[in-house]
Amino acid sequence: MAEFDVDLFVIGAGSGGTRAARIAAGHGARVMIAEEDRIGGTCVIRGCVPKKLFVYASRFAEEVEDAAGFGWTVQKPDFDWPTLRDAVANEVTRLSGLYRKGLNGAGVTIREERATVVDAHTVRLAKSGETIRARHILVATGGWPSFDPPIPGGELGISSNEIFHLPSLPKRMLVVGGGYIALEFASLFVRLGVEVTVLHRGDNVLRGFDEDIRNRLRDALEHAGIRFRLGCTVQSIELLPDGCRRAHCASGDPIDADVILVATGRRPNTAGLGLAEAGVALGSLGEVLVDDDSASSVPSIHAVGDVTNRVNLTPVAIREGHAFADTTFGNKPWRTDHGLIASAVFTTPEIGTVGLSEVQAAAAGHELRIFESAFRPMKATISGRNERVYMKLVVDAKTDKVLGVHILGHDAGEIIQAVAIAVTMGATKADFDRTVALHPSAAEELVTMRTPRAG
Amino acid sequence: MAEFDVDLFVIGAGSGGTRAARIAAGHGARVMIAEEDRIGGTCVIRGCVPKKLFVYASRFAEEVEDAAGFGWTVQKPDFDWPTLRDAVANEVTRLSGLYRKGLNGAGVTIREERATVVDAHTVRLAKSGETIRARHILVATGGWPSFDPPIPGGELGISSNEIFHLPSLPKRMLVVGGGYIALEFASLFVRLGVEVTVLHRGDNVLRGFDEDIRNRLRDALEHAGIRFRLGCTVQSIELLPDGCRRAHCASGDPIDADVILVATGRRPNTAGLGLAEAGVALGSLGEVLVDDDSASSVPSIHAVGDVTNRVNLTPVAIREGHAFADTTFGNKPWRTDHGLIASAVFTTPEIGTVGLSEVQAAAAGHELRIFESAFRPMKATISGRNERVYMKLVVDAKTDKVLGVHILGHDAGEIIQAVAIAVTMGATKADFDRTVALHPSAAEELVTMRTPRAG
Repeated sequence: MAEFDVDLFVIGAGSGGTRAARIAAGHGARVMIAEEDRIGGTCVIRGCVPKKLFVYASRFAEEVEDAAGFGWTVQKPDFDWPTLRDAVANEVTRLSGLYRKGLNGAGVTIREERATVVDAHTVRLAKSGETIRARHILVATGGWPSFDPPIPGGELGISSNEIFHLPSLPKRMLVVGGGYIALEFASLFVRLGVEVTVLHRGDNVLRGFDEDIRNRLRDALEHAGIRFRLGCTVQSIELLPDGCRRAHCASGDPIDADVILVATGRRPNTAGLGLAEAGVALGSLGEVLVDDDSASSVPSIHAVGDVTNRVNLTPVAIREGHAFADTTFGNKPWRTDHGLIASAVFTTPEIGTVGLSEVQAAAAGHELRIFESAFRPMKATISGRNERVYMKLVVDAKTDKVLGVHILGHDAGEIIQAVAIAVTMGATKADFDRTVALHPSAAEELVTMRTPRAG
Repeated sequence: MAEFDVDLFVIGAGSGGTRAARIAAGHGARVMIAEEDRIGGTCVIRGCVPKKLFVYASRFAEEVEDAAGFGWTVQKPDFDWPTLRDAVANEVTRLSGLYRKGLNGAGVTIREERATVVDAHTVRLAKSGETIRARHILVATGGWPSFDPPIPGGELGISSNEIFHLPSLPKRMLVVGGGYIALEFASLFVRLGVEVTVLHRGDNVLRGFDEDIRNRLRDALEHAGIRFRLGCTVQSIELLPDGCRRAHCASGDPIDADVILVATGRRPNTAGLGLAEAGVALGSLGEVLVDDDSASSVPSIHAVGDVTNRVNLTPVAIREGHAFADTTFGNKPWRTDHGLIASAVFTTPEIGTVGLSEVQAAAAGHELRIFESAFRPMKATISGRNERVYMKLVVDAKTDKVLGVHILGHDAGEIIQAVAIAVTMGATKADFDRTVALHPSAAEELVTMRTPRAG
C-alpha cells in the first residue's frame, strides 16, 4: 500500500464527489477530497437548494393575494431582498457545514484548495504544491455556467452563480436563455416584483420537454408578467452611464436592464485540470468520456456527475458516485441506470416529468394513446386565480405501457417523484386505471383519465 | 318493457348514485333519480369539497407567518368568517348545478323529493305520492352523522352538516370525537383563530391509522394550539344563560364552548326507507348488506356508497356505482376491489396513507422491515416553523413487498395518490430503491430510505 498515499483522491466536493468519498471511506479506503470553492458543490451552494428557497419566497405574494377570496384581509406585503438573500446564504452555510461534518465523520481528509491531475495516479494541490499519489482518482468537478457564444460586453452579464448575492433587488432583469435555469429565475424574480424579460434564441422555451407543457408554461409565465423575446439573440451588451446595461439584439429594440442574467447553458468544468495531458479522453464540450462504470479512458481515473455531462442532476451524480465507490472499494458492483429519471422545473407553475415526451415517443416509433386533463385547481375556485393544472399520459397503444407522465401545476415535483416509482416498474395504463382515486386531490386525475385524445 | 316505468330508479343523488345513473343512461337505460336534499350528496354539499376549501382557508395564516423569514413584511391578517362561508356555499351551489347538468345531459329524470321503497320493484315519491315501477332499484342514500350514545342535551351540539353554515365564528369550540372528521375540523378552526378542545373517549386519535402517524399528528395538533381531553366522554350538555354550551364530562372539569361539534361517527342512512319491509337484509348499523356486485338480498335492489358501510369514501362509491351500471346495463361486468385504497386526512399537517399500518401488518402475520424518515421540510429551514415531515414504509421482510406507506406532512394526499399506483401494482422495496430521486423534494425520501429501523 505504501506506493500510494491514498486509495482514492476525489477532486470536487459536490454531491457526487462527497457521496463517493463517504461511501469509499465506509468501505475502508483511505480517502482525500479537494475543493477549491465551498464544500457542497453546485446543488448546495449555487443550485438546487438556494434556488428552491428563493422559489418558496416568490410564492408568498400570490398566497397573500389568494387569501382574500378565503376571507382574509391582508395588506399588500413589502419585500426586503437582503433579508431573503442573507437567510438563504445562512442556510447554505449550514448545509455546507453538514457536508463537511459528514466527510469528517467518515474519516475523509479534506483539502480546501484546487487540485489538478498530473498523471494516472498523481494529483497536485495548487496552494501547497504538494503531490499526492492515489490508487484511484475521481473527477467530480461538476459544471460551470457558460455564455455561448461570447459577445462584446458579455462580462456585463452575470450567471446563476452570482444571482444569489445581488446587493439589491433589480427593477428590471433581462434573462438570456430558455432552459429550466433561465425560466426558474425569471419565474421567481417576477414574483418578487422585478420586471423580467426572457430573451431566447429558440422559438420556444424548454427544448426537450413535452410540447404541451412547453406551451402552457410559457403562457402561464406570460400571464405572470414575464415578457418573452423568442427567436432572438443578444449581439452585445453596453454599460450605460447610469450603470444600467443595454442589450443589443439581433432584431428589435435594445433592452435595458439593471441585471442581465445569462443562463444559456453550462459546461463540464475541466479546463486546466490536466486531464487531457494525463491521457483522459474528453468530449467536444470538455466532458470526461466515461463508460457505464464511470471509468475514463485512463483506468485509474473515474468521473461522476455534471463533469461527465450525462444526466446533469444531483441524484444522478449521487448514484454515480455511490455506484463507483461500492464497485471499486466495496466489492458490490452496480451501475446507475440513466434510463428513467424524473425531474422537476421549479417555475410557478411547476413542472414534473418522467419518461418520454409525446414527440420523443412518436419519434421512437411508438403508436400512441394520449390522455390529458386540464382543470382549474380547487383552490382557484375560491381565490379566483386564473390558472389551470395540466397532466398528460403518453401511453404505448400496443403494450399499454405508460411511456411518459407530464404535469404542470401545484406540487408537480412531489407528485411526479411518486409516479416515477410506478413508471420505473413498467406501469401500464391499466395499472393507473385500477388505482382507486383519492378525493379531493389534483393527483387523482392521473388515475381517472378514461378517454384518449382524439386523433 | 311496459311493465316498468323505468329501468333504474336511483335513490340519492350523491357521488355513487349520480355516477350509476349517468353510466346506466349512457348504456341506454331509462333512469330516474330522486334526491330529497341538494343534488351532489355528502361529498359536494357537506363533506369533502366544502371541508377542503375551509382547509385551504385555514392554512393562509401560517403562510403569512412563514413569509416573514423569506423577507416579506405582512401585517397580521384579519379573518372574516361570512366571506369564507358564503364563498364556499357559492362554490357548492355551482358544483351542485354541474351535477344536475350532468344528469340532465345524460337523459336522467331528476325528482327532487324523498323516495322510499315499497317492494322489490316499486318506489314511492313522498311529495307527489306517485309510485314508480322500476326494473332495478339502486339505494345510494349515503350516511348521516350520529351522536352515539344519545345524551341529555345532545341536541345542543351540531354535526358536520351544520358547521359550514355557522352565523358567526365561535370563540370557543368543543369537538367531540377523535376520528378524521373531528380532527379535520379541529385543525382548520384552530387556525382560523378559534380556541379548540377535542374530547374523545379513546386514548388516542384516529383509530385504525398507523401508530406513529397517530402520535405525531396529535403532537402536531397540540402544538398548533388544540387542547385534547382523551379517555373522556361527554355525559350531558347544558345551555347556559348567556347562550353558551357547557359539556359535563365523565371526568374532569366541564367544558364551556360557543359551539359543540359532535363528530362521533356516521350511520348508513336507511331509516324509514322501507328496505326491511321490502325484504332487504340490513346490518346492525342499518347498512344495506350487499355482495361483491353490490346486490342486496333482494335481487332487483342494489346499494352503493356509504349506505353499505364498506369503505366510506367518495371514489369508492363512484366505482361501486360505475361497476353496478356497467354490469347491469352495459354488459361489461366488473367489480370494485376494496383491497387497497389510498386516503388522506386533511388536517394540518396532512396525512396520506395506503395499505396496512405497522400494527395491522404485524397482526396479519407478516415479518416486517420498517423504514422511516422524519425531517424538517426545506421551507421550514427559513421560516423557522417547528414542524417535521414523517414517512414510513411497512415492508414484508420475506417478499420485500411494500405493504403500507404512511406520510404526515405537506402534500401527503397528493403524494400518496401517486404512490398508490405503485403499491397497487405490488411494488417491492427494491422498486422504490431503484427509482431515482428528484431533488429537492419531500417525496424523494420515499425512494432514499436505506436502513430499516432497528429492532
